[in-house]
Amino acid sequence: MSSFTTIADLEKLHSFACNLARRAGKYLRDDQARRQKKALETREKLNSVDLVTSADENIEKLIREAVLAEYPDHAFIGEESYSAGEEKRFLLKDGPTWIVDPIDGTVNMVHMFPMTAISIGFCINSIPTVGAVFAPFLGGHGSLYSAIHHPQGGAWFSEFGPDGPLTPLPILSPLPPLPKEAPKGCLFFGEWGKDRRDSPQSNLTKKSTNFVNMATEIGGRGGKGGMVHGLRSLGSSTMDMVYIASGQGDIMFEAGCWEWDVCAGIAILLQTGGIVVDSSPPDNIDETGPIPMASLGGRR
Amino acid sequence: MSSFTTIADLEKLHSFACNLARRAGKYLRDDQARRQKKALETREKLNSVDLVTSADENIEKLIREAVLAEYPDHAFIGEESYSAGEEKRFLLKDGPTWIVDPIDGTVNMVHMFPMTAISIGFCINSIPTVGAVFAPFLGGHGSLYSAIHHPQGGAWFSEFGPDGPLTPLPILSPLPPLPKEAPKGCLFFGEWGKDRRDSPQSNLTKKSTNFVNMATEIGGRGGKGGMVHGLRSLGSSTMDMVYIASGQGDIMFEAGCWEWDVCAGIAILLQTGGIVVDSSPPDNIDETGPIPMASLGGRR
Repeated sequence: MSSFTTIADLEKLHSFACNLARRAGKYLRDDQARRQKKALETREKLNSVDLVTSADENIEKLIREAVLAEYPDHAFIGEESYSAGEEKRFLLKDGPTWIVDPIDGTVNMVHMFPMTAISIGFCINSIPTVGAVFAPFLGGHGSLYSAIHHPQGGAWFSEFGPDGPLTPLPILSPLPPLPKEAPKGCLFFGEWGKDRRDSPQSNLTKKSTNFVNMATEIGGRGGKGGMVHGLRSLGSSTMDMVYIASGQGDIMFEAGCWEWDVCAGIAILLQTGGIVVDSSPPDNIDETGPIPMASLGGRR
Repeated sequence: MSSFTTIADLEKLHSFACNLARRAGKYLRDDQARRQKKALETREKLNSVDLVTSADENIEKLIREAVLAEYPDHAFIGEESYSAGEEKRFLLKDGPTWIVDPIDGTVNMVHMFPMTAISIGFCINSIPTVGAVFAPFLGGHGSLYSAIHHPQGGAWFSEFGPDGPLTPLPILSPLPPLPKEAPKGCLFFGEWGKDRRDSPQSNLTKKSTNFVNMATEIGGRGGKGGMVHGLRSLGSSTMDMVYIASGQGDIMFEAGCWEWDVCAGIAILLQTGGIVVDSSPPDNIDETGPIPMASLGGRR
């Protein structure tokens, strides 16, 4: 058994992860200020992808070094290091594993739209167990969502800085049930994503068809109309997840996720009574590759 | 000439409008807390439209009474009083006129999603001249966007409470130009709205077609592909406008606006260098009815 099954261990690790997410957020705010200064000097728009990529790499390095200094025997999976081909051997192993997305919502960050988050997740036996999601640009002090997924755990929201009060999540606890006619009446979150091909099989075609179906009146679109209460696209699946975990949204749909996109968010969602389901049959799942789920996270 | 053409008058009025927006925001936060308590007691979901309607009416009353006590000779147009049929005679007159949307983003408020704003606008000669938009649930202290549209005016953002520091808007000033291949590379904001009919002429069909065109690769959709950098739907056209005014978004598209939806947002947008254009030819405009524009607010 891992030594990380006691609640005291998890509380210490959760506190470490929250502080680390705030530290990374401070780096991101400072980096944004540097980018703004540079954009003003050069009179160019901020959408230099290179600058953001370098922030991505630097934040992942900051988090990785801090984690391995504190927990040298843990595995670490990050978006950047995975992309660089180093870390495939760790994917979804059973030992204590940190799974990190240094910047979720990169397009938003390029445009200074505040739905950008640092996502630090921790798994044991492939189960998301601790999550810390920090949105450094949301509110004057940033917004921190975190959870320990454990019978004696909890989930919390902080919007007044590290010394400010915590709000237990979900905001209404226990969460009321979904409307009886769901998805009718639900607040639905979905993202348009990067695949923009105009072809019948593209992610864009599938997603946009789903969005229009969800929006349409009951009985419309050949019976597929969902009449959701509203459709929201924030540009960050991590932020979608924490809003649902908070009870501020009901359903989200995402296709083509990777571990680092979802680990911290799932830990928070699981602890607040949310569920995550695959849209594909279980026998399609290849646990050594990217998670092939079109995850539908909604309340029980 | 109105007495409200001096910058000193406008500064006093702007300060009054900002304080009033914060006062209304405090009411809305307290009201939300009451609704949460009631929902926990009854174990029902918060989506009772009646409760929100009553908050809408109460906040409009609070703002109207404060405005008319301070400025008894001004006209006042509010969504609620207009809907009740009282105020049509004031629509778009030339005198000093307050135009108020007590709650923009009602569906969000029902679901506790924080993109909800109080919008207080002030027009002279039908020109949006002062705007105060307060989002009471966004950040621990709420988020206040405001502007005086005047050569000696300005636009500001506050996220640390009434005594906290102000950030001049736009965040990058002057705003860099739009990308040369716009809408490619832009962050696009659009809302799905309430008309969900599955018919060729419905607002849903027109809007969703536009959204998919904007998202699709260049050359796709019969040449209509816009390859925007991202599509965002927040559920509040007022919040869309203040993000664009801040330089955190580039383009928004809205159909079927009413004066109270846009007055404060336009004042802020105009002062920060944004433009608002009609998608219909000018000779279609009927200035006594609802503004028939599909406004496209973007940067010069």
